[in-house]
Amino acid sequence: MDSDLLFGSVSAQKPVALELYSLIKDLPILSPHSHIDPALFNTRFDNPVEVLIQPDHYILRMLVSQGVPYSQILSKENPCDVWQLFADYFYLFRGTPSGLWFNHTLKNILGVNEKLDSSSATSIYNQIVAKFAEPEFTPKKLFNKMRIEVLATTDPVTSALEYHRAIPSLGLNGRVIPTFRADNMINILLPSWTANIQLLETASGVEIKDFNSFIAALEQRRAYFKSLGGTATDTSCSLPETTFLSHAEVETIFQRALKGQAGKQDAALFTAHMVTEMARMSVEDGMVMQLHSGIYRNHNPEIFNQFGPDKGFDIPIRTEFTRNLKPLLDRFGNNANLTLILFTLDEALYSRELAPIAGAYPAIRIGPPWWFCDSWNGINRYFDLVMETAGLYNTVGFIDDTRSFLSIPARHDLWRRVSANWLARLLVQHLIDRRDAEEMAIELAVGLVKRTYHL
Amino acid sequence: MDSDLLFGSVSAQKPVALELYSLIKDLPILSPHSHIDPALFNTRFDNPVEVLIQPDHYILRMLVSQGVPYSQILSKENPCDVWQLFADYFYLFRGTPSGLWFNHTLKNILGVNEKLDSSSATSIYNQIVAKFAEPEFTPKKLFNKMRIEVLATTDPVTSALEYHRAIPSLGLNGRVIPTFRADNMINILLPSWTANIQLLETASGVEIKDFNSFIAALEQRRAYFKSLGGTATDTSCSLPETTFLSHAEVETIFQRALKGQAGKQDAALFTAHMVTEMARMSVEDGMVMQLHSGIYRNHNPEIFNQFGPDKGFDIPIRTEFTRNLKPLLDRFGNNANLTLILFTLDEALYSRELAPIAGAYPAIRIGPPWWFCDSWNGINRYFDLVMETAGLYNTVGFIDDTRSFLSIPARHDLWRRVSANWLARLLVQHLIDRRDAEEMAIELAVGLVKRTYHL
Amino acid sequence: MDSDLLFGSVSAQKPVALELYSLIKDLPILSPHSHIDPALFNTRFDNPVEVLIQPDHYILRMLVSQGVPYSQILSKENPCDVWQLFADYFYLFRGTPSGLWFNHTLKNILGVNEKLDSSSATSIYNQIVAKFAEPEFTPKKLFNKMRIEVLATTDPVTSALEYHRAIPSLGLNGRVIPTFRADNMINILLPSWTANIQLLETASGVEIKDFNSFIAALEQRRAYFKSLGGTATDTSCSLPETTFLSHAEVETIFQRALKGQAGKQDAALFTAHMVTEMARMSVEDGMVMQLHSGIYRNHNPEIFNQFGPDKGFDIPIRTEFTRNLKPLLDRFGNNANLTLILFTLDEALYSRELAPIAGAYPAIRIGPPWWFCDSWNGINRYFDLVMETAGLYNTVGFIDDTRSFLSIPARHDLWRRVSANWLARLLVQHLIDRRDAEEMAIELAVGLVKRTYHL
Repeated sequence: MDSDLLFGSVSAQKPVALELYSLIKDLPILSPHSHIDPALFNTRFDNPVEVLIQPDHYILRMLVSQGVPYSQILSKENPCDVWQLFADYFYLFRGTPSGLWFNHTLKNILGVNEKLDSSSATSIYNQIVAKFAEPEFTPKKLFNKMRIEVLATTDPVTSALEYHRAIPSLGLNGRVIPTFRADNMINILLPSWTANIQLLETASGVEIKDFNSFIAALEQRRAYFKSLGGTATDTSCSLPETTFLSHAEVETIFQRALKGQAGKQDAALFTAHMVTEMARMSVEDGMVMQLHSGIYRNHNPEIFNQFGPDKGFDIPIRTEFTRNLKPLLDRFGNNANLTLILFTLDEALYSRELAPIAGAYPAIRIGPPWWFCDSWNGINRYFDLVMETAGLYNTVGFIDDTRSFLSIPARHDLWRRVSANWLARLLVQHLIDRRDAEEMAIELAVGLVKRTYHL
Repeated sequence: MDSDLLFGSVSAQKPVALELYSLIKDLPILSPHSHIDPALFNTRFDNPVEVLIQPDHYILRMLVSQGVPYSQILSKENPCDVWQLFADYFYLFRGTPSGLWFNHTLKNILGVNEKLDSSSATSIYNQIVAKFAEPEFTPKKLFNKMRIEVLATTDPVTSALEYHRAIPSLGLNGRVIPTFRADNMINILLPSWTANIQLLETASGVEIKDFNSFIAALEQRRAYFKSLGGTATDTSCSLPETTFLSHAEVETIFQRALKGQAGKQDAALFTAHMVTEMARMSVEDGMVMQLHSGIYRNHNPEIFNQFGPDKGFDIPIRTEFTRNLKPLLDRFGNNANLTLILFTLDEALYSRELAPIAGAYPAIRIGPPWWFCDSWNGINRYFDLVMETAGLYNTVGFIDDTRSFLSIPARHDLWRRVSANWLARLLVQHLIDRRDAEEMAIELAVGLVKRTYHL
Repeated sequence: MDSDLLFGSVSAQKPVALELYSLIKDLPILSPHSHIDPALFNTRFDNPVEVLIQPDHYILRMLVSQGVPYSQILSKENPCDVWQLFADYFYLFRGTPSGLWFNHTLKNILGVNEKLDSSSATSIYNQIVAKFAEPEFTPKKLFNKMRIEVLATTDPVTSALEYHRAIPSLGLNGRVIPTFRADNMINILLPSWTANIQLLETASGVEIKDFNSFIAALEQRRAYFKSLGGTATDTSCSLPETTFLSHAEVETIFQRALKGQAGKQDAALFTAHMVTEMARMSVEDGMVMQLHSGIYRNHNPEIFNQFGPDKGFDIPIRTEFTRNLKPLLDRFGNNANLTLILFTLDEALYSRELAPIAGAYPAIRIGPPWWFCDSWNGINRYFDLVMETAGLYNTVGFIDDTRSFLSIPARHDLWRRVSANWLARLLVQHLIDRRDAEEMAIELAVGLVKRTYHL
């Protein structure tokens, strides 16, 4: 990455930004929420297409948006042809964060100095293949080279976490820890729900015959995740609705669900109740709760039916926190044992709802820009819209949320550069002094995330 | 227009912006969507008030907002007095795009070098009257001088397009083409709806007795518009709702409408169905579909009753695409034969919905900032909010949407200046290189619009 | 405040901004809407904690958001310990407007030159105590030193306004005038509503037995407020709904309310009708109408029950004007006798609804950024999102809305600095000329507010 990448446009603050950036650019990486496969660290990299293109839904969606068929991009035959196709269309990523991350990975991780286009495609493909063959170029060795101190994965509650158990023997210089994700358990309309409950019974050793035993089984799993270093849970739902049902109400719904007789309203109420219940469990076991909402998943049925989820067709929807979260906040909002981190894709919420809520309730923190929003403009908007009302200390630093292991350094570097730029502006405007700026820079890079996630 | 207009505020990127701007400032103008009267090119300009003030709803609304009565502004007597009144209030337009467009037109089209205010009003009025009397100063000659390559008008589906037919004989250096607008046909609650259907029968030669013959008549008109160079349709509706009814359902509603018995829900369903039907016809005949939504038209009944539509009292409303467009997208979103261009006045949709949708669905493109939003800040916000997620190539360049012929160069020049500024920032921040920047500048000025609209 | 505070980040416009700022920085302060207690001017300042911390809900909420208990912050014992606690946590306010206002007050009003932190806390506390003891340091003397020309308070309609009556004898160099606030009268579900009606009867001398006499009583109070210099009313409601009921409908609801039998829908309709009725009264008596909406007050029941209102737990909600205001606008929107100033906490409304509405309806003006939004970024966003469409002259200058007397100069200074910065950008971009910029700067500082509020 160019040393002054992103710093060039405002002369008056560039030298200050560079100084602040130099303080943080080499600090270790803490990644408290990702979708990296924990099995990765015992393997080698496949061909460039399987590592860099096919798992990256940001790249897939952009290609398909311009008419490239998924069947071609996702083909397992002739990766060299897929790579050429990608290179032919790489101009689509001009000025996008996907383009920035990709170029960064090419240059800083893979040592490629050419610009990717139709004519350089084959040469670059061969360079990457050669790199992947080097003995030093394994996921494990790269983990250490990237100075990763903690990497949290995302795991179903029924997982045996066998790869996490094996990690200590691999010789990594940092930790790989699981995150408890119960989404498959709280949506009772999933066709697989009763099967999921059976898996939960098996995993937890708790017979699930009613709501109380269901909760007991989940609590058993949370304890298991904690025992392997897990410090957080993650919940994703389309809208952040919460409620608190009486025991009788929730039991009735749960029994209907067990019999496969639950309806849409049952499901909405059950999910809303379970979000509050997850907060209750966090109050008790101290695990940090993450809530990702405001997304219509699998919006394109044709693509979903043919190619499955996570192919780039999840579309954000309008979201609301002030009324939706009230039942949960009435119960646990003032409880300092709870840390509930809210993420949004609806940027209208930053200043209108998120900052005022997190700037008042002890239990609430604001997650960093997420998914479509963790670009340079997106991060800038976040700083401008959130910080004045919530204050830096009600935010939690950076979270890469990535599915692409090789992109981790690019993403954290982008965050650190935008942080340095933002603080430089506050400093040259005399809104903070240098000591403030330096401490805030370090907080944004490592301090906030370390404390918030108990890492 | 000052040569460095808009380029002065950030020193580090000003020279780069000027270089990029110099590449595009003299490129031809492609205007794929306007409200220019096609009869104009066979006429001369009237007095300054009738040309510059009375047709411009941006100007009318600002004057009336400060208490100037419409009856005075719209008076056809003593245009000199109306001009003086306008000049007395011209300070209201300080820092507004209307002010910028007006000043540009005065200076660059009309050769006026004084600043308009109460004291200069008469002198400037007389200069313009003299200009209008020059033999070289006709709409036709100006069309050529402005280097307009294509100008698309907006026309009711029943129009005989007689002016478009006459255009080839006028000696213009560019094309004037029609755009198919069926709004009067898809809103069955309009008091004029049955009369509109009769006009459609006459124009198409198709007897309309059921939904199928209605569609056949529309298809006949689309073919006629195409035969005169039309490449696009335009649909405006308050909310972008879509649905797909069964043939029996839509036929039932259509028959009720023919009998004047349709209700509100019928009308909403019919419009929503027709938006999807317009997409289906575009898939078949290849016409580009434009959808303008999110506006409460004729919000002020007193003004509407006295002075009619388009007098500045159309007010934007909150809009939603992710759920509303799903029925249409489920059917045609993956169809590369469709190009559906979405416009919004609700800027919250840029990053939350529009960019993710257009950045994934092959059929969707994002229209440029529209109406209240095509100002320098509005265009800047658009670039910052849309481009990172959608990419440049899912946008379509600039569309002036103007009712004022003389303002066309000012509007395109503003777009090109903001484009150059935006690209200069990406370049000095090392997010793109110079070759990228130059190609993107040309795409924004002419390339995208030419390809998208098949011009 | 540093002389170039906020001006440092863009070199090209800094000298211009400083020149414009120098024109306005010492102009008198007009504060047309505040929550200052009119009794203040006959008293002396208490200890630092009671003056600077405990009444400031911006400060309270930030401390409690990081786990500091209200019982400690609000303790009346050992103010020195509360001050130390505050100083220990003062880093939370880095980069926030609360931090900026506080530092400005410390330095420019209280003459403190140290940075507040744990180690300087006691020293600064003692300096302030000494300052408060100086004979020149009274609210009355400070009022004059701050060059306040008009200060409007906010007062219940039943207030005898005894402190306002006494003000002329105090020797202030400016006026302190009341603002008519009828919120307690228009929400018929308040437990205290019938008691409020009795207070209104007593205050007005009008027996209230039906809706007409209720209105007559309110009109009597408005006349009384006017007689003591009041020029404005203020209404706060969660959503800006308006309606216009028939006399029979409103009478029925009013009678149910008098009997304590009104329901939720009655209450919503009554409030919506009363907002329109307040506009009708303003048309008749010329008082400026202010409407503050979009806030969920007392969102945290535990805090409200223990500590009461205005403790930092009011959270904004999504708002809408285009449809909600239509009944009122249909009746009075074109009436130049009405000035209705709209305030919002939902910044999505700035460009989408507020600017188009105020840029057309003669009766509507846009209030400045309010509450969470009157920060440097918030004011910048307001300028960028509102001015192009509404024009400067449909805005009303600055309103501090403060509860903290000593913070008034800091708030107005911030507004003037951001104004100067904004105008400097327009000037260096050649969007306005210097004469425009200078006149606009003075309008923003004093002209608009003076004319709009008839001060």
